[in-house]
Order: sequence, then structure tokens, then C-alpha cells
Amino acid sequence: MQDNDLLLSDLGTDGVLRLTLNDMARRNALSEAMLEQLAAALDHASGNAQVRVIVLAAKGPAFCAGHDLKELTAARAEQDRGRALFTRVMNLCASVMQAIVTCPKPVIAEVGGVATAAGCQLVASCDLAVASETARFCTPGVAIGLFCSTPMVALSRNVSNKHAMEMLLTGDMVGASRAAEMGLVNRAVAADDLTSATMAMAQQIASRSQMTLATGKRAFYAQREMPLAEAYTYASKVMVDNMLAQDAQEGISAFLEKRPPAWQDA
Amino acid sequence: MQDNDLLLSDLGTDGVLRLTLNDMARRNALSEAMLEQLAAALDHASGNAQVRVIVLAAKGPAFCAGHDLKELTAARAEQDRGRALFTRVMNLCASVMQAIVTCPKPVIAEVGGVATAAGCQLVASCDLAVASETARFCTPGVAIGLFCSTPMVALSRNVSNKHAMEMLLTGDMVGASRAAEMGLVNRAVAADDLTSATMAMAQQIASRSQMTLATGKRAFYAQREMPLAEAYTYASKVMVDNMLAQDAQEGISAFLEKRPPAWQDA
Amino acid sequence: MQDNDLLLSDLGTDGVLRLTLNDMARRNALSEAMLEQLAAALDHASGNAQVRVIVLAAKGPAFCAGHDLKELTAARAEQDRGRALFTRVMNLCASVMQAIVTCPKPVIAEVGGVATAAGCQLVASCDLAVASETARFCTPGVAIGLFCSTPMVALSRNVSNKHAMEMLLTGDMVGASRAAEMGLVNRAVAADDLTSATMAMAQQIASRSQMTLATGKRAFYAQREMPLAEAYTYASKVMVDNMLAQDAQEGISAFLEKRPPAWQDA
Repeated sequence: MQDNDLLLSDLGTDGVLRLTLNDMARRNALSEAMLEQLAAALDHASGNAQVRVIVLAAKGPAFCAGHDLKELTAARAEQDRGRALFTRVMNLCASVMQAIVTCPKPVIAEVGGVATAAGCQLVASCDLAVASETARFCTPGVAIGLFCSTPMVALSRNVSNKHAMEMLLTGDMVGASRAAEMGLVNRAVAADDLTSATMAMAQQIASRSQMTLATGKRAFYAQREMPLAEAYTYASKVMVDNMLAQDAQEGISAFLEKRPPAWQDA
Repeated sequence: MQDNDLLLSDLGTDGVLRLTLNDMARRNALSEAMLEQLAAALDHASGNAQVRVIVLAAKGPAFCAGHDLKELTAARAEQDRGRALFTRVMNLCASVMQAIVTCPKPVIAEVGGVATAAGCQLVASCDLAVASETARFCTPGVAIGLFCSTPMVALSRNVSNKHAMEMLLTGDMVGASRAAEMGLVNRAVAADDLTSATMAMAQQIASRSQMTLATGKRAFYAQREMPLAEAYTYASKVMVDNMLAQDAQEGISAFLEKRPPAWQDA
Repeated sequence: MQDNDLLLSDLGTDGVLRLTLNDMARRNALSEAMLEQLAAALDHASGNAQVRVIVLAAKGPAFCAGHDLKELTAARAEQDRGRALFTRVMNLCASVMQAIVTCPKPVIAEVGGVATAAGCQLVASCDLAVASETARFCTPGVAIGLFCSTPMVALSRNVSNKHAMEMLLTGDMVGASRAAEMGLVNRAVAADDLTSATMAMAQQIASRSQMTLATGKRAFYAQREMPLAEAYTYASKVMVDNMLAQDAQEGISAFLEKRPPAWQDA
């Protein structure tokens, strides 16, 4: 870890990997370089058995300002008016957001500041999110002629249609407690408690069997997109396989014997 | 009805069938025998014109503790390590949950205590749910190595993704008022008012035309899984057929003539 | 605009088109004539570059009472018992509701009174909705033998399953603040502030690039019905095309240069 990295990475003995956006000068914008570092970090964490839970945090007053508009604008000078870069960045960004969803480890956003546009999408894409009471959220692309059409994919899978549309059509800021009511974040806590509250949640989840977490997270997003009958057929099979896994045998025995479980992957 | 039945059944003259989980010793766990009785009771009620609305209640401090872990664990001694029983129980459980959804009669959960794992799924699967302020809800499978992958199917069709994920990944208890905010139950009432509030809702619905209730309930879940245009094509046809039914002619005439309607099936 | 029109139309210099239901005698019911006027007005507004945002309001204490039951009932005297008219009206109604969704201009409901059945559907179908604190909402078809099966299509795409089912199965009125909590409307404001609050929201949105609004609105409803991966592929392409449009170039430049943007279509 170097302090001049765009993304700081810190893995604790508790199995919680903290990834911290570290580009305060650009308000932690999702530049191509930042997206590449996020993609690499998520890919590495997915395959690292030492990582049990990921917390995505940020340095400075902005959690993440979304795309790097200066970088995008500079590409307009190219012969293709930027199409190649725009395509590359949008695809990379969509792939990072989906990497959060497909990562076998739970990912928790720790939001201490303003999360804007694709920064708001980053929060929406995480499995869980804890916000400081001072955090704010918006999808303001409409004000600059660039509707937040990729952020809306994640946003509209978190909040109801009218709430999503209000954010998208007005671009207005939403405070943390309102974001919690709407379902964009799980809870709003005092700014001073943000890291401790997020880490307590992360450590609780990190104490579980990794096999179980990976099984459940994958099943959650898979069944969510199926009709009810298909979802039950799929999830019932997941349950049977889960029952036959060593960690379920151990976990259930430990529960019935009133002792702590010893996970295979601990 | 015998007091030693796992499931008590009581049909009032108001057309409200109360099905009461009656296995306090096992915290009303969904053992294979309990699931079979639920399946039979729902099947019977679906075809019984005397039954207009079903209330699903429970005896004792636990509404339902989910699967019977002792029964499941005992099957590990089999040559197949339990696979046959696990498959049978998971399929039966999924079929009971779907029988609630496909039952032509509205089903209301009356939740006075803790609803855990598949017990929480049971509440989520009902059309409506009224909870005592002392009721609590959780999907704690993650703590015993067995992620609540079938409960999540019903849960995630009731509450937003982040709320569902928080329950599934932490396993923490959710109180009744929070469950009402999240959409898992319709409302939380004082413990002393639970049965009267649930029965008032049940009796109001039981006073309607059964044909209308069955038409609407079936249409609700069917259209919910369709894209918008297809949903409108389908629902418009349902409306035309409903308009041509005797009970709609009677109901609309009664309304225009300011008199109570006399349903065909009353 | 004539005062005896069923639908008043008033386009301001701010680009906000106010469409006002004007059939107080029938509580602004969606008669065949009213639906035809709504369809024509939405079609005309969709193609009119002067219209940037649409506000849908109503005269009198009822926002909209749903279908015109007298008109429907009169058709029972026909040889086909009304089937032809019922089919025509249901299809027309479904087409008006979908015309709101497919209209390239954002549509905001301004709800000052009771919105019932298809009137509630009208509110649910709009992109945004502002309600007076005195407004109320219900889907009471169940009480007259005609389940609100088309209103449920829009309602269930706004609120959670149990909330929708409670409205549909009980037919009970829901107050404005409860409707805001449930996600059926964006907010409830004092009755005296209803028009000013709605118009402020409308004018803010009307100040944006029409190309951007049309792009975003279309993308929102399209991606909402896709699985996640497909939604991202689609939305990423929308973003690239949006980036290459003149208004995005202008909007982003204006933002970076800290000056107001000058839209092509202003």
C-alpha cells in the first residue's frame, strides 16, 4: 500500500478488507485509472481466502464524484470525438459495478460524504451501505445534459420508481436519513460512529462461513431475476447442496449443541 | 379438530378459516409433518366455498422457528447423508409457500411472536400480515452455515434489496415496527389487539365476492412477473371478463343504487 | 381551450403543459370521452417541442374517480352485454396509462383530492407525483365486485407487494403522508402549496435539455424490465450516445467552465 495509490487496500486479521478511494484532488472520481484499480482489487479479493468481507470507503469530504468529466472531455479532441474512450470507460464502469455484485464476498459501502452520479451507483451496487448523517446522494447528470442512465440501473434496483425518478429528473441532493428511508442505504449513523458501525457490521459478517456467504450472495441476485416458481426450484436446490456442505453440518451441530461453530475456512 | 394436531383449523360463520400452528414444543417448526398438514389444509381450503379468507396464526411465543433442524440432522445418518430427506423437505416447503400464493383465498399472517428463517418466509409469502408489536423477524441461517436461500425468495419480493441483504447477511432480529416500515408486514399493533385487528381485516375481506377476490389475487401475482405492456394486455382482459361476471353487475348496480350488494357466493 | 372541455390544456412560456381534468360533475371519471381527450393531449404533447414537462391536475375535490360506472353499466343493455364497450374502454385506458410512460416528456401528477381506482392508477403511472396533505388514494373495486386489476399494474410497480395487496383487498383509503411513505407519491405538501410545489418541480425539470430528459426517461423504464447484465449493456450504450450528443458536450463544458448551459432545444 502506497499513499499515492488511487485505491488504498488494507486487510485486517479479522478478514475485513478495507478498500479506500484515495483521490481527494478529484473528489475520488471514477477515472479510467481508478476503475482499473477497483476492478483489479475486486478481482484479487474474490480469489483471496483471507478476505471475508470488503468495506468500500473513501478519503475526504466526497465519497465519490462519479465519472471524471475532465478526462472524458479531453477525449473529445480525438478523431472519433471520444467514442472509443467513452465506450471503454462506460463498459469498465459497468463491469466494476457488476463485479461488486458477483464478488463472492459481501461488500459494504461506508459513506462519509457526497456520493454523486456513478458514485451514488457505487453505493447502490454494494450489498449493504452505512452512511454518515452528513452523507448526501444525488444523480445530477440531468443538469449537465448527461442523464445518469447507468447509475439508474443500480439505483432503481434499490429504491422505488418514483423515488428513483425524482433523484434522476431533479438531480437534487438526498440526505442520509432520507436515503435510509428510501432503501438506498441501510442506516445513517453519527459521523463519528461511521467507521466503527460499518466495521462492527463487517466483522459480524466476517465471522461466518465463507462458503455460506458466497452461496447465499450468489443465490440472492440469481433468484431475484427469476419468476417465483423458477426461483423456488433454484433456491431449493441451493438449500439441499448447502445442507450437504461441511460448514452447514458443523454449524447446525454447533447450534444444537450450544457451542461456537468451527468453520472449515476459518 | 384435535388439540394434539400440529395444525388447528377453525372455520367461523364469517367465512374466516383460522389455521393455527400448534407445536409449541418445537416452536412451531416446519417439520415434514407440519408442512404436510399445511399443504393439506391449504389444498382443502382452496376448494371449500365456505372458506372466504384464511388467517395463519400460531400458538405460543414463537410464531414459527423455520425448519426442524433436529429432524434434518437425524437424516445425516442415512446412507445418502440426508440428501433424499433434505430434497423432499425443501421441495415440500417451497410448494407450501407457493400454495399460499396460488390459493384463491386471501391469506393473512397473524404474527404474535418470533418468525425465524422459513417462519419469516411464511409471513412474507402471505398476501397480508399483521404483527404484534412484540413480534420479531429474522433470517439467521447464515449463523449456522445454512444461508436462508429459500426464505430469501419470499423476503426479497417484499422488501428492498439492501433491507433483505441486511437480514440475510447479519441474521439480526428486526422488530415489528421496523418490519412494517420495510414492507414485510402491513402493520404492527399492540399485542392485545393482534387477533382482533387481524380478524377485523379478515372479516372485511370475507364480506366481498369470492369470485372477485380469486380473480384479483391470481391477476396480481401473474401480472407482477410480466413486463408492463404484457401486464396491461393481460389485466385488461381480466377486467373485461370480471365486468361480465354476475357479481360485478350486482356490485356496480348496488353501488349506483346505494344498497348493499348480494353476492352469488354469499 | 374552452371551459366546457373535459380536459383543459395550458402551456406556459416555461415549457410546462398543465393538463387539467375538468369534469367535476362526474368526479373527473375516465369516461371514454375523457380517455380519448387524454390520449390526444399526450400524443400532441409528445410531438410538441414547446412542451418540456407535463403536469396532470384536476378541478374540484376529486382528482379522478376511475372508470365511469354509469357509462359502463349502460352498455349492459347491448346485445353483447357490453363486451365491446368494456373491451374498448379497458384497452383505451391501458393505452393512456402506457402513453404517460412512453411520453418523452416527464409527467407529474398534482393530486389535490381523492384518486380512486383507475384514478389512483393515473397517479401511479406518472413519473412523479405531488399530493396535497388532504389527498387520498384507494383501489376499491373489490367492494363492487370488480377487482382493480388494471390499476394494480401501475400500483404494484410503485409500492411493495403487501402495501399494494392491502389497498387492493381492503379497498381502504390511504392518506397522502402514508402514500408518500409507501412510494405512491413523492411527497405530501400543504393543500395551499400544492400547485406552487408541483410547478417548482416542473419548472426545474423544464430547464433541462429535452434530449437528455427524453433519453433518460426512455432508458429508465426500458432497463427496469431487464436482467442486470442486459440492463448494463443497454444503459452503457445509452450513456455513450448521450455523451456524443451536442447537449452533453455543452452541459459538461458549461459545468467545467462554471457557466449556465445553452441547450440546443431551449
